[in-house]
Amino acid sequence: MSSSILVVGSVAFDSVETPFGKADEVLGGSATYFSTSASYFTDVKLVAVVGTDFPDVHIKGLKDRGIDVAGLKKVPGKTFRWKGRYEYDLNQAHTLETHLNVFSSFNPEIPDSYKESPFVFLANIDPELQMKVLDQVKGPRFVACDTMNFWIEGKPDALRKLLKRVDLFVINEGEAREFSGEASLVKAARKILENGPKTLIVKRGEYGALMFNGGTIFSAPAYPLEDIFDPTGAGDTFAGGLMGYLANSGDVSGDNLRKAIIFGSVMASFNVEAFSLERLNTLTLEEIRNRYSEFKQLTRFEDI
Amino acid sequence: MSSSILVVGSVAFDSVETPFGKADEVLGGSATYFSTSASYFTDVKLVAVVGTDFPDVHIKGLKDRGIDVAGLKKVPGKTFRWKGRYEYDLNQAHTLETHLNVFSSFNPEIPDSYKESPFVFLANIDPELQMKVLDQVKGPRFVACDTMNFWIEGKPDALRKLLKRVDLFVINEGEAREFSGEASLVKAARKILENGPKTLIVKRGEYGALMFNGGTIFSAPAYPLEDIFDPTGAGDTFAGGLMGYLANSGDVSGDNLRKAIIFGSVMASFNVEAFSLERLNTLTLEEIRNRYSEFKQLTRFEDI
Repeated sequence: MSSSILVVGSVAFDSVETPFGKADEVLGGSATYFSTSASYFTDVKLVAVVGTDFPDVHIKGLKDRGIDVAGLKKVPGKTFRWKGRYEYDLNQAHTLETHLNVFSSFNPEIPDSYKESPFVFLANIDPELQMKVLDQVKGPRFVACDTMNFWIEGKPDALRKLLKRVDLFVINEGEAREFSGEASLVKAARKILENGPKTLIVKRGEYGALMFNGGTIFSAPAYPLEDIFDPTGAGDTFAGGLMGYLANSGDVSGDNLRKAIIFGSVMASFNVEAFSLERLNTLTLEEIRNRYSEFKQLTRFEDI
Repeated sequence: MSSSILVVGSVAFDSVETPFGKADEVLGGSATYFSTSASYFTDVKLVAVVGTDFPDVHIKGLKDRGIDVAGLKKVPGKTFRWKGRYEYDLNQAHTLETHLNVFSSFNPEIPDSYKESPFVFLANIDPELQMKVLDQVKGPRFVACDTMNFWIEGKPDALRKLLKRVDLFVINEGEAREFSGEASLVKAARKILENGPKTLIVKRGEYGALMFNGGTIFSAPAYPLEDIFDPTGAGDTFAGGLMGYLANSGDVSGDNLRKAIIFGSVMASFNVEAFSLERLNTLTLEEIRNRYSEFKQLTRFEDI
């Protein structure tokens, strides 16, 4: 009964410095993290663009995880590169360099074999491109999207138009406040949901996530890690686990969204334990299930 | 089976400005918030000092809630006054003025009728005074204490000595990091617990609380409020609900500590809805029980 997911986003090389070490030109990008995470739960169809410098070994790596790369285009030029640093406050990335390269003219074309994907995830790209993706797919069952402050400030109208066509909107806490102009997250959520989505998930980094859905709120914790080695990709990994579990179960009810958020949090908690996809690529289903149980232990308390 | 609690701390007048309004010279102080909150669960015995300007109507108010004020001393001089402001980030108080007044020579004397209290809460005062309190009581069953950055920086050795005699240490996130010198809360908790307490609770304001106890971690959410009207006293109200529930049930097991943290969070969530003790003074047991159930709804998710 598992359904497939179409994801559109970036594939990139990241150079990252954290208090624990540094990594140069390692595989990254929103679509990469999302796909790898979701691939533990269901079939994933990837749409992204890379340059001619992108090595086949990385493409093979994605394929080995069962990810469909028919929509991964290789074009003349260099692959998107990002360089950033994290201080001890690992909730905040400091961007040192961004070279969009071939990503600057990314115009996602959805292969015919992808067009009936029932689940769609629009990672953080220009909201006009996110809409173009939706124009190409045929009646998806469940659409989720991410965004960032750059688009909230630069293309708020396009973003609002997009949100009318989206079931689930996933953003971080600061973005929720900025987009709504409300300091209170409860008020911010109400305002944002008026734009169309049935569900809003607010990511709060090491503090977990809040889901607003049908007048109810769900508060999910983050897994208390000894060390957050590298937070790069945590948000997309979270979304990958979440959408992966939803697509796998085919159930988008409020109760199942709660479970999906925990699976997303489980995947994100593994991802931040190492650079790049190092930890994500070596997971077992048993490790995922065990950490889900740890989330249960972390939050349980008895009735009165 | 309910046991009584001895609390030692401050009784003060607060002047507070928040984005929602202002209050002048209203009743406040750590012992006041703690006692009022705990009084919904069990008998409370208060030790504090006020000046001759402290009106009888406030003393009557405490008595009306069943709080024993035999240990509330009135001495020549003025009552402790604090003036502060909160910006939209309500996690952070900006102190404008502090006048310790009679509180500067506070030397807690425990009345004989208090000395066998099985539960003791040492609110945030000089750790040397906190130890003097423990010297006067007879074999308490369960001792909890709070502190602040001022004592962490000024009297770290006295604080460490105190912690050897304490079962539960309750501090906020920034203080836990400062006291331990660790950015990771998991590492910070381990270091702090090496000083003696069996249990550490880290308060995280609008993000809830973490408990570290016997190698396990419990993550409690905060109640997502539409508006946090005034956060003053939230930490002491939390501690009051927590200790009140523990003393009422007489059970200090890990599982019961989890329930106690939720009761503490319930009480704090009410307290921040209004200035001073306004909301805390008008609660019903039914409101407290209902909000506990809302915490259950807020956090529930199914097993795999």
